[in-house]
Amino acid sequence: MIGEIITIGDELLIGQVINTNQAFIAERLNGVGIYVEFMTSVGDNTEHILDAFTRAMKRADVVCVTGGLGPTHDDITKQALCKFFNTNLVVHQPTLEKIKALFERRKLRITQASADQALVPRGCTVLENTIGSAPGMLFHDHSSAKEKYLIALPGVPFEMEKIVTDHVIPFFQKKNLSSIVRHLTLKTTGISESILSEKLGSIREIIGTDGSVTLAFLPNPFGTKLRITVRGNSEEIVEQKLARAETLIRSKAEKYIYSSNELELEDVIGKLFRERKLTLATAESCTGGMIANRITNVSGSSEYFLRGYVTYSNISKTELLSVHENTINQYGAVSREVAEAMATGARASAKSDIAISTTGIAGPTGGTPEKPVGLVWIGYSDRENTFALKFNFGDNRLRFKERASQAALELLRRKLLSIPIEE
Amino acid sequence: MIGEIITIGDELLIGQVINTNQAFIAERLNGVGIYVEFMTSVGDNTEHILDAFTRAMKRADVVCVTGGLGPTHDDITKQALCKFFNTNLVVHQPTLEKIKALFERRKLRITQASADQALVPRGCTVLENTIGSAPGMLFHDHSSAKEKYLIALPGVPFEMEKIVTDHVIPFFQKKNLSSIVRHLTLKTTGISESILSEKLGSIREIIGTDGSVTLAFLPNPFGTKLRITVRGNSEEIVEQKLARAETLIRSKAEKYIYSSNELELEDVIGKLFRERKLTLATAESCTGGMIANRITNVSGSSEYFLRGYVTYSNISKTELLSVHENTINQYGAVSREVAEAMATGARASAKSDIAISTTGIAGPTGGTPEKPVGLVWIGYSDRENTFALKFNFGDNRLRFKERASQAALELLRRKLLSIPIEE
Repeated sequence: MIGEIITIGDELLIGQVINTNQAFIAERLNGVGIYVEFMTSVGDNTEHILDAFTRAMKRADVVCVTGGLGPTHDDITKQALCKFFNTNLVVHQPTLEKIKALFERRKLRITQASADQALVPRGCTVLENTIGSAPGMLFHDHSSAKEKYLIALPGVPFEMEKIVTDHVIPFFQKKNLSSIVRHLTLKTTGISESILSEKLGSIREIIGTDGSVTLAFLPNPFGTKLRITVRGNSEEIVEQKLARAETLIRSKAEKYIYSSNELELEDVIGKLFRERKLTLATAESCTGGMIANRITNVSGSSEYFLRGYVTYSNISKTELLSVHENTINQYGAVSREVAEAMATGARASAKSDIAISTTGIAGPTGGTPEKPVGLVWIGYSDRENTFALKFNFGDNRLRFKERASQAALELLRRKLLSIPIEE
Repeated sequence: MIGEIITIGDELLIGQVINTNQAFIAERLNGVGIYVEFMTSVGDNTEHILDAFTRAMKRADVVCVTGGLGPTHDDITKQALCKFFNTNLVVHQPTLEKIKALFERRKLRITQASADQALVPRGCTVLENTIGSAPGMLFHDHSSAKEKYLIALPGVPFEMEKIVTDHVIPFFQKKNLSSIVRHLTLKTTGISESILSEKLGSIREIIGTDGSVTLAFLPNPFGTKLRITVRGNSEEIVEQKLARAETLIRSKAEKYIYSSNELELEDVIGKLFRERKLTLATAESCTGGMIANRITNVSGSSEYFLRGYVTYSNISKTELLSVHENTINQYGAVSREVAEAMATGARASAKSDIAISTTGIAGPTGGTPEKPVGLVWIGYSDRENTFALKFNFGDNRLRFKERASQAALELLRRKLLSIPIEE
């Protein structure tokens, strides 16, 4: 089945909001064999919305619409749906009861706008929203010879996600769609897209010639993802082709691959620390807590992450990490010596097995010819080794922090797996 | 002028990548009077790309295309452009020289894929990419009676952004577009979308009736943004209408508004700390460094941010923040008492004017009936006051951290501005 996603809202068209709903829905639809071919965003404009509905219902079998179901005046999707399906709004009693109960529990009186969220176009199937007040709606289009569906969902991401998971995916899973699609993503870091492409050599050799396998290169500040996609009708053959492509890629670029599928580097490291029963401390200057923040994004990280220091001032490096004042004065706060001393100091103070440190110039100001903006030293210390590596991650402050945190976590991964480290 | 944005890449259609390019381009085009009415995403499929080009060039004056210009095999946008404009690829010599020089500087030999990035469709204007190898391209469509443009840009966000800033925006600015559009965004936190809508009362009163002013409610985990948009032909009248709407909104919801336009809460707080020459320390348990990370996203934060503690283990709370073991044993690590002791301890140890702390249960596991997942205590300490506030931010770990960090920063803002704090 072919899918299409329509996201509605002026906030998208003026670029105020980044559209995360599309990606979520696309990924989930793909998982049940609905291949999204087009995504469209339109404003809070009835004519444009109807235009998008018409085109999508022509070229796709499953159309997912998000946005414009909220309680405020700029939410006009329900009116557009009524026009499109030539129907009118009616109260959905269970939703109204639920909204009333919600307000009672919170000891608030119900607002008219909230009560109106129980109105739905007559004839749709209501998809319950257990964590918000605007329900989802499924329309079965009987006007077409083919089986066609339009699903309208709230624009608030976590509510939309819950309804997709609870209702939309199970609905299509039950239809037992025949064609199978599998994706595998290999995440690499520490190598540029074009060098990676060269290392892999002939893409044809990896993906074959029958068109059932595709390979995409997806660069971002954290590295380049390689996505293998295989389509087919037999689970067994699809899995075989996927495994073959993965083996070939790994044989050429294994050491740069830190994860398959959607695991982040912090998840991979968390697993290694847990398996080896090791503990970790962080001492961050220029990354300002981003490394600790990423490590603690992992559920269960309290098992191995003991503590983090964000030592922004020189005196905090001295007091908390026992970095000698002389070392800072002699070599500067951004230096191999200070990075190493920070890592050693953090490990000693936290009594952890391993510690990692960062000191650098995140910019956009504060650089010198000798120590330019973007320079960072990443320190590492365990029982046997202490050392620091030098990088330059450019002059965009946020990207610098992302890249430096990624390099620090990659350093941990390579040490834990005894993969050679390149400076 | 009407704009349209086309983003190309299978990674978008399977939901592997979140489309941030659309929002960036839309926002910038809006600023020069190009109103984006449609955004479309299509896969690496020549037929679909050409279909999207055709439709966009019909209904829009300026079409921005991103993606598919990279060095790898799945990048087919240039071929599609050649077909669409009925032309062929030629070497752009300055780009080739630049790519060669880049490789020489890095002491790498040039790859064929990289050299091919200097190929461009004959007849386009090349838009130099100063931070990457794939240049942008501007096509002037002479086949139409109206002035129409298609601009193709690389998909890597920071390269695209640089080319838009360096070339695309100045190009359209010079055209001196007549119609004026101004947006103002008021960011609120600590109040739900529907209660905020009620507080504002009649939207008509705020936006008037002539259609030139619109108001949108944009909720996200950090709060709800209110976006006012005014269109018109006179700079003066547009500014007047904007100011009038802002004044009305502020008169009804002032205390929830932490920023106008795109400043983040950490920027607002940074400004306040700098102005008042105050210093700050953080002591985080459940937020795991996110607060320090956000504070240090602000350039110049080293002026007021002295240090951060990420005290994940109980012993680190005792050792670094002098939280008594007895306090933890008696009340539990997630308690008002521990939050207050963490803030007091951080302030004393860092010798800062103010300290903020968090302790809670980020989940998704680890809750009890008495202390459920989502519970968080946020502590505050300055020379005169120490206290802690209790919140519940739900069972999604990342959203919990976002909301808790926002509440902690909002607490700082309200204290610094002497705005009453609600528990």
